[in-house]
Amino acid sequence: MADRDATAPRRRRGRPRGGRTEAREQILAAAATEFGDRGYDGATIRTIAERAGVDSALVHHYFGTKADLFAAAIDIPINPASAIPEVIGTDLDTAGERLVRFVLELWDRPAFRDRGVAMLRSVIGNRRTASLMVGFVSRELIRHIGERIAPGDEGRTRASLVASQVVGLMVTRYVLELEPIASTPVDDLVAAMGPNLQRYLTGPLTPAASA
Amino acid sequence: MADRDATAPRRRRGRPRGGRTEAREQILAAAATEFGDRGYDGATIRTIAERAGVDSALVHHYFGTKADLFAAAIDIPINPASAIPEVIGTDLDTAGERLVRFVLELWDRPAFRDRGVAMLRSVIGNRRTASLMVGFVSRELIRHIGERIAPGDEGRTRASLVASQVVGLMVTRYVLELEPIASTPVDDLVAAMGPNLQRYLTGPLTPAASA
Repeated sequence: MADRDATAPRRRRGRPRGGRTEAREQILAAAATEFGDRGYDGATIRTIAERAGVDSALVHHYFGTKADLFAAAIDIPINPASAIPEVIGTDLDTAGERLVRFVLELWDRPAFRDRGVAMLRSVIGNRRTASLMVGFVSRELIRHIGERIAPGDEGRTRASLVASQVVGLMVTRYVLELEPIASTPVDDLVAAMGPNLQRYLTGPLTPAASA
Repeated sequence: MADRDATAPRRRRGRPRGGRTEAREQILAAAATEFGDRGYDGATIRTIAERAGVDSALVHHYFGTKADLFAAAIDIPINPASAIPEVIGTDLDTAGERLVRFVLELWDRPAFRDRGVAMLRSVIGNRRTASLMVGFVSRELIRHIGERIAPGDEGRTRASLVASQVVGLMVTRYVLELEPIASTPVDDLVAAMGPNLQRYLTGPLTPAASA
């Protein structure tokens, strides 16, 4: 996108005074406030842009989608709403082990783990943070990724079962550091947990279907 | 156990002045302090009795095992260290669904859920509480119940995998109230999650073993 300082002189709707860094910071601060006030579903790129005093286009240009902006606002380096579909790829029938490996290789990195643990502590310990994160997860992970797993309610149910196992892995291994799961090698956990995630993704979930 | 007021007159080693309720309260207060100061493994019935100024026998008489006293001190109405072995019973090969149903039927009761959610928020949000609870879970659930699942490391690994799924269920359904898992009927969740717990208990966990 071309520089628009000359063509967008109005302060309220154009690029704010100051450099690129300052504009990004203003947008991130506005996003934090808007997400906090309106929740994930209530806040939009438009209301965030208005609060920051910039064009919506500039927000999209700097941050991408609302999910990307949310990830940036809560300071996580990876947006799961785009990363997880990449991990699943086109082969849902083998995605269970890949999903476990993806979570473990990301969270085993100390810099990520420290931020992830702080985020989980905050989400689980604080109702307001929980509500915001649950809004994000419901919309972007359960609903959108659920559609890739199976149509309608079934896809959302399967996605939330996957979430229950992944959240339990994060809490026991990284937050509580419960042994022996906290120090089990990645390959062993992938072998142990992958087939269980695979069953949630594509296996029979009712007694009738498995009979 | 006979009343020993007449035979144990010394205040430091006998029953404290005051009634049964007062003695129980003194023991619970001493237990909370000792567990907090020394951790689950470090605190003993003996050190708790000494702090309360009563006989160890009186602590056993009122509260049973150390695990029972811990459950009473953190105000949970059921001691999982004795309840879970009962649920597993003698038939480990069918325990997966029974374990899920046990957790769901307990936590779906509003009075239990409210206390359970408060406890989980505290354990996950607070390092000191976390360390104490992890000490209890490691000793009583991972080590002792692990021995009932399989010998040695394998039993502990299987028990911690079960813990990862059960903790994830508690956090997503009850703390975060993530839909649709938060409102899925108990029978459906038992059918969906039971076989996954069963695999952790008795199934093949390595690629070689499952080949």
